[in-house]
Amino acid sequence: MKLAPKGMRDILPEDAMLRRGVLETIERVYRKYGFVPLETPAMEYLATLRAKAGEEIDKQIFVLKDEELGLRFDLTVPLARVAATNAFTKPFKRYQFAPVWRYEEPQKGRFREFWQADVDTIGTKGMRAEAELLTAAREALQALGFTQLKILLNNRKILDALAAKLGIEDKKEAVFRLLDKLDKVGEEKVREEMEAVIGKEKTKRLFEIFDTKGDNKKKLQAARSLSEEGANELEEILALCPFGIEINLAMVRGLGYYTGPVFEIKGDGGIGSIAGGGRYDNLLGIYGQADYATGISLGIERIIALIKERTAKENKPAAKTYTRVLVGNVKPEFYSNALQVAAELRKNDIPAEVDLNERNLKKQLDYVNAMGIPWMIIIGEREAKEGKVTLRDMQSGKEERLTVRDSIGRLK
Amino acid sequence: MKLAPKGMRDILPEDAMLRRGVLETIERVYRKYGFVPLETPAMEYLATLRAKAGEEIDKQIFVLKDEELGLRFDLTVPLARVAATNAFTKPFKRYQFAPVWRYEEPQKGRFREFWQADVDTIGTKGMRAEAELLTAAREALQALGFTQLKILLNNRKILDALAAKLGIEDKKEAVFRLLDKLDKVGEEKVREEMEAVIGKEKTKRLFEIFDTKGDNKKKLQAARSLSEEGANELEEILALCPFGIEINLAMVRGLGYYTGPVFEIKGDGGIGSIAGGGRYDNLLGIYGQADYATGISLGIERIIALIKERTAKENKPAAKTYTRVLVGNVKPEFYSNALQVAAELRKNDIPAEVDLNERNLKKQLDYVNAMGIPWMIIIGEREAKEGKVTLRDMQSGKEERLTVRDSIGRLK
Repeated sequence: MKLAPKGMRDILPEDAMLRRGVLETIERVYRKYGFVPLETPAMEYLATLRAKAGEEIDKQIFVLKDEELGLRFDLTVPLARVAATNAFTKPFKRYQFAPVWRYEEPQKGRFREFWQADVDTIGTKGMRAEAELLTAAREALQALGFTQLKILLNNRKILDALAAKLGIEDKKEAVFRLLDKLDKVGEEKVREEMEAVIGKEKTKRLFEIFDTKGDNKKKLQAARSLSEEGANELEEILALCPFGIEINLAMVRGLGYYTGPVFEIKGDGGIGSIAGGGRYDNLLGIYGQADYATGISLGIERIIALIKERTAKENKPAAKTYTRVLVGNVKPEFYSNALQVAAELRKNDIPAEVDLNERNLKKQLDYVNAMGIPWMIIIGEREAKEGKVTLRDMQSGKEERLTVRDSIGRLK
Repeated sequence: MKLAPKGMRDILPEDAMLRRGVLETIERVYRKYGFVPLETPAMEYLATLRAKAGEEIDKQIFVLKDEELGLRFDLTVPLARVAATNAFTKPFKRYQFAPVWRYEEPQKGRFREFWQADVDTIGTKGMRAEAELLTAAREALQALGFTQLKILLNNRKILDALAAKLGIEDKKEAVFRLLDKLDKVGEEKVREEMEAVIGKEKTKRLFEIFDTKGDNKKKLQAARSLSEEGANELEEILALCPFGIEINLAMVRGLGYYTGPVFEIKGDGGIGSIAGGGRYDNLLGIYGQADYATGISLGIERIIALIKERTAKENKPAAKTYTRVLVGNVKPEFYSNALQVAAELRKNDIPAEVDLNERNLKKQLDYVNAMGIPWMIIIGEREAKEGKVTLRDMQSGKEERLTVRDSIGRLK
């Protein structure tokens, strides 16, 4: 009983520092695009959650015992509720980075509590919103060190038109669900299962369209024969994004509520997606005032896993502390000198610690090494008298006797 | 059913920006002192929560329906659990800023979901830890604009000795609970109720000791007659803190688990406290390996309320956006120019928006005014041709025609 609950994790400092850094980087980028934060309660009325949740996700709600409340399973429901019941100036561009909870059997790499980073634009009809979401997401991911991003784009209007053309509208949900598995189980398996749902002939025609080889131009041509509007929207997004985007007509993006463009970003060499989203113009109406809506969600857990893989390869030890220097004292009577020096360093934005545990110098050095602190300042008899400090580079072991001012310069 | 649940709030962007800013400021200060983040799940096993919770708080746990889980009611329980079951290098200095939940009747200014900002040091026996916690908390609060802080200090060892001396150890809990109300209901009322618990004579002697007029020296003298150790600890903290601290021998700090120094910080002119904490050396043992522990909790909700009062007085409108400039376009064909200019501004860390909603210039101006964006850049025929932009100061209405480079200089 002394552990974190089943399927949930303590994020210990090493990982928490990485996680904070990732979120701060993403937040910094989105603020530059004029997105503002929104915070909503962890709990929502069950009626609010169930208004959107499909049957599958309904079972995954963590329900509270005493009131008609459940923990949010995503950040789209609270956004839709808030946006549909407040009169914001439009476009309303908000971000929310927060945990969500799903009551399901925990699996490897899948937890009952995990973070989402959602960015949405409410109240914009045109594709400028989608182009901005992709531009900003790309910039955020690049800022996190992802250099080989692959951005995929499709439009539900095209998929819907295709379903209409093939006369399989009544089986759309099953068909889309199968297409959604393409990445995971491969085309052969999906075709096989698809034939069981819509028959051999229609499956063949479906995959002929998806298979449009070659560049975006050819794919747009095929798309246009199905939905002029859908193709125009894709074309507009491509025109507004000065970077590579690949149209993928078979991409569905699971959620049932998408109504227009859908998109997905894959990380460096990664198979799964690290971000995804799309337009959902019909959702807000459920909660109040209807409005245009489009958004992207960055998969924080996946992004962090990939960053950890990358740093593991680079063989760089993860940071264990923000501290740049421990200001040690040779004898207890120099602790107050150490406090003064540390205060001076902090004033200059250099994270500095002192020895709280009244240890001898040897043990202070052990602490510095255990924590991976890169520098140590040593204050002894001579240093206290001369008003100087000894600055030790922990990696090279090199020591210098300097004024506090000069050591600040060295540490910056 | 379309609102946030009873007793909980949506934090809309204006407030969320303030809240993010407050947390970021506090976090920046604590990192400079070498504190590291820890994140724990929102839920804990009920057994974990109940191991610490007194009877009163037990009733306030939000219990989940399907498993033996409850939402955390504070951040000390998860810290104690994590610290007692992991082998961290000591001192283990962690911060956690996160929401907690209490299932109680909502009152004015008191919510069922609220944030705490906890900072604790595990594994330090001596008072250097307390002195650091107070120094850092003071710096964080000053960074938030609090200039008239009042720091109060006491020691449970002294209170315990006093209870022993008066022979009221069996009634300690009731006595402490009454003392805790001093601030709220005043001395007269507390004395009256105290007499009902321990009688007239003992109440008189109790308040004689508390009443020690004058400076810390006199109070320390009175304290020393009760607990030599307790008084020494206070003296040590005073010696390590180069700023004003007031000893208050009647201060209890509600929680039952404190074992040594307790402290409290009051904000500018505020009556209630905005931070408080103390030493709790006996708590970790409940969850595993026993260890020294001391910490402080900043009352985020109260701090934010006071900052809002302050800014209301200053008559400064709260920021509604991070955006410094909207790059507008006179005609749709200049939108791509606007995009390029906005990208250039963002590269220079200037938050910039473009017109997502395909509006005419007049409506773009309306948006800028509605959001309180301080600058607007206008791109029309002439600007596009000349490769220049028109920069408009929204407050003065003054316009200049500049290169993008020069406008970046102006906006920085």
